[in-house]
Amino acid sequence: MADNAQGNTGNSRETLGEKLYELAKRRGFFYPSNEIYGGLTGFYDYGSTGVLVKRNLENVWRRHFLRFNDNSFELEPSDIMPESVFIASGHIKNFIDPSVRCKKEGIYYRADHIISDATGQNAEGKSPDELSSMISEYKVRCPKCGGELGDVKVLNMMLQVKLGAEGDTIAYLRPETAQGVYVNFLRQFNIQRGKLPMGLAIVGKAFRNEISPRQLLIRQREFTQAELQMFIDPQDIDNAEKWDEVKDYALKVLFSGKEAAETLSCSEISLKAGIPKLYAYYLAKMQQFFADALGLPIDKLRLRELSKEERAFYNRIHFDVEVYLESLGEYKEIGGVHYRTDHDLTGHGSISKKSHEILFNGRKFVPHIIELSTGIDRVFYSLMELFYNPKSEKKEWEWMSFPPRLAPFQFAVYPLVSKDGIPEAARKAAEQLKSRYEIFYDQSGSIGRRYARADEIGIPFSITADYQTLEDNTVTVRNRDTGEQSRIAIADLPAEAEKLL
Amino acid sequence: MADNAQGNTGNSRETLGEKLYELAKRRGFFYPSNEIYGGLTGFYDYGSTGVLVKRNLENVWRRHFLRFNDNSFELEPSDIMPESVFIASGHIKNFIDPSVRCKKEGIYYRADHIISDATGQNAEGKSPDELSSMISEYKVRCPKCGGELGDVKVLNMMLQVKLGAEGDTIAYLRPETAQGVYVNFLRQFNIQRGKLPMGLAIVGKAFRNEISPRQLLIRQREFTQAELQMFIDPQDIDNAEKWDEVKDYALKVLFSGKEAAETLSCSEISLKAGIPKLYAYYLAKMQQFFADALGLPIDKLRLRELSKEERAFYNRIHFDVEVYLESLGEYKEIGGVHYRTDHDLTGHGSISKKSHEILFNGRKFVPHIIELSTGIDRVFYSLMELFYNPKSEKKEWEWMSFPPRLAPFQFAVYPLVSKDGIPEAARKAAEQLKSRYEIFYDQSGSIGRRYARADEIGIPFSITADYQTLEDNTVTVRNRDTGEQSRIAIADLPAEAEKLL
Repeated sequence: MADNAQGNTGNSRETLGEKLYELAKRRGFFYPSNEIYGGLTGFYDYGSTGVLVKRNLENVWRRHFLRFNDNSFELEPSDIMPESVFIASGHIKNFIDPSVRCKKEGIYYRADHIISDATGQNAEGKSPDELSSMISEYKVRCPKCGGELGDVKVLNMMLQVKLGAEGDTIAYLRPETAQGVYVNFLRQFNIQRGKLPMGLAIVGKAFRNEISPRQLLIRQREFTQAELQMFIDPQDIDNAEKWDEVKDYALKVLFSGKEAAETLSCSEISLKAGIPKLYAYYLAKMQQFFADALGLPIDKLRLRELSKEERAFYNRIHFDVEVYLESLGEYKEIGGVHYRTDHDLTGHGSISKKSHEILFNGRKFVPHIIELSTGIDRVFYSLMELFYNPKSEKKEWEWMSFPPRLAPFQFAVYPLVSKDGIPEAARKAAEQLKSRYEIFYDQSGSIGRRYARADEIGIPFSITADYQTLEDNTVTVRNRDTGEQSRIAIADLPAEAEKLL
Repeated sequence: MADNAQGNTGNSRETLGEKLYELAKRRGFFYPSNEIYGGLTGFYDYGSTGVLVKRNLENVWRRHFLRFNDNSFELEPSDIMPESVFIASGHIKNFIDPSVRCKKEGIYYRADHIISDATGQNAEGKSPDELSSMISEYKVRCPKCGGELGDVKVLNMMLQVKLGAEGDTIAYLRPETAQGVYVNFLRQFNIQRGKLPMGLAIVGKAFRNEISPRQLLIRQREFTQAELQMFIDPQDIDNAEKWDEVKDYALKVLFSGKEAAETLSCSEISLKAGIPKLYAYYLAKMQQFFADALGLPIDKLRLRELSKEERAFYNRIHFDVEVYLESLGEYKEIGGVHYRTDHDLTGHGSISKKSHEILFNGRKFVPHIIELSTGIDRVFYSLMELFYNPKSEKKEWEWMSFPPRLAPFQFAVYPLVSKDGIPEAARKAAEQLKSRYEIFYDQSGSIGRRYARADEIGIPFSITADYQTLEDNTVTVRNRDTGEQSRIAIADLPAEAEKLL
């Protein structure tokens, strides 16, 4: 089964995780992929409800990240890319997972993860030899059966495919969307008429042969990334065109080596911490996405600076966006801002033999890249947890308090009964709204049962046609959060909807 | 290079294909994937313009196919699926391509294609032995070098991936989205509370190791399908709930064995040709999508019935939607309606050992499936060709006449000059529209040059702020198709936009 345990840090946490997963399966948010075959480890399917929330999330991402700079565009490159790309990017050599095999069961585990879990020590980024030493030093055993562990080996995490009749063209499913953008840089720079900064984004799949997929949507083998690559003139790293818009914006930052997060304005971050202004501007845009555009509570979020040891060697500055997830009992990375310098374009220039130097502002240089990366599935899971409300005195059922822009449907529409022309009246109400909103039409069960069903998937407004509708063409509109109801004329629904949403 | 020739049926046709491809690359509709590495055969990238048109196309598809039945839903299952799925579906055994190797060059070709091209005979669906006989009978040689051909062999077209630390879990990239729906059937039937017909759709990637990818987006190795699987009670095959809506709708049908297409109403098709009403209803929905929702000219479209020899053995009825593409000099399949009966669910029931019998209307049975399938990339290419307009007396530049719902941007916004507060006025106009429409803001080059650029990518309306804007807060709105301009108050733009679109 693909159902991995949801953390193991206490009973109440397990319970929240279990509740979320039960709701996710029962109401069609997500569930194990290929479930009738017992699942496929590391793969999940988005169901009929989840796909709508996920698409809303992706569209909120697009509206936010593609609009703060006119010169930003989305691309849809192929998921499969030739080997040369990953020679240039370094993935063939460096995209490796330390893994260790239980000698008793023969099962592989992510070595750094089981060492961290067993010892509480941070083992990320250590070499295989260092990890092997930690295993013997701390006497780490197989987390499942207690068996002895072998030596730590490294395995490349990319999934290979073989193309052509003889299968002799080696290619890979991209392990990050980023490379899909980089191989497009030269053509797009030309199409967009040679200006920097230029933003190029992909919202799409990435694939990794994770040794230990776990925590449901958090660590999967197939997942969705939304990444914006900003191509910049390195001389402009301290020059953000719209600096005034963010200079007083407060960021919640955990600096490397510090114990606690601090709240500092972008100006302070730039002046005191020496973070270049353009980078600080993008950090602000990142936090604004999570805190303002998605509406996640700032007390659950933080921007964590990675130390030189933690970050990739080519990242000059690296902050992760982390969210505290009670169901997992820990902070989880859901995004990041990576100053990748000219590492990628120089690599592609050298392997492809196509110079990636451009002429801009009278100088020839290879642009630098700042990557604004979001893990869509991890954010999706976070939305489910952070907008989840258990049964309480207020409501006898559990419910999701998604903001309307994220809710799977904006309106549920019900006929009170399935006769006497009431369904036709309800259809008329739905007709008023369906060109602009997602409508959930539901005519079975008691109205109370239908309200519960709508609340469980987070529909913010429910519209009911009843006998009064036949007399005066009004319907009741119920607010999910307050339970309040008001009567609205069917003809006024579009204007009312605009006001409500 | 991934650039395969665009058909070879005459000079004027080649010219249209070349013009389209040149425009596609220059303006960012699509171009070879991984172009800096010389391309990857059978893969294309959608650029900054193409991705917007493709998304609009997918959304028009959703609005059309998910809304004629309340009980229809979209899913997003994983692209990678385990081997068992394709044992059950028959793909491991049957999803094979006949291929033949040039003895001189060592290159493989799709045997049936090169035989058809060389002889004009239909070779589709023939066995390897039959194809080998045709090659010797008609003396078919290598289409590139004229070399001798070897024997025809079959190769499975699925792309395999190996999961896990030892790579011992065999899985495949799905070769059609359909199987992703089928493995979800039991759970979704339960979530949607057990009603038939039920529709489940995927808009997503599929992957095939095509031996001879060709004709740009038409035959790729990675492509996007939009497929709606309707699960029905087989006893209802002659019972379409909304029959009255389509019974007089005229379909353009080419019956198997006939020379010419006929135009018949759904009633006539059901009565005279014996096509069951529910199938005819879905055929009508299919034609409505292409002719009405997308606005493709009906004289270029036809619904072609496949003979028993042409269609898959499990398809009881199969019509393809075909479009005539002048650039290729032939009709191309861009969609299909496949009555797959209980073939798939029975297969999955038997291999997964989970019964796919349901209880409905007091009977236990395995639902039948009618699949409404659309090839998104092929439709995209068709849109480019059918909305393409060459230079003419009317316009000195080539232009795309996309309807607004498909256009990459609905509005272009220009400041006449980049000074004197004109850009700020233009921004104000853009602000009025950007929450609901895609806006292309462009401030470089002469206005004429900017109009040409907007026309080339098919933006239906261009808005210009000029000196008069500073006086009276009006802008000019230019209509792409007529060239007519009118002055509109900036505050009235949202209402005007609603009228125009």
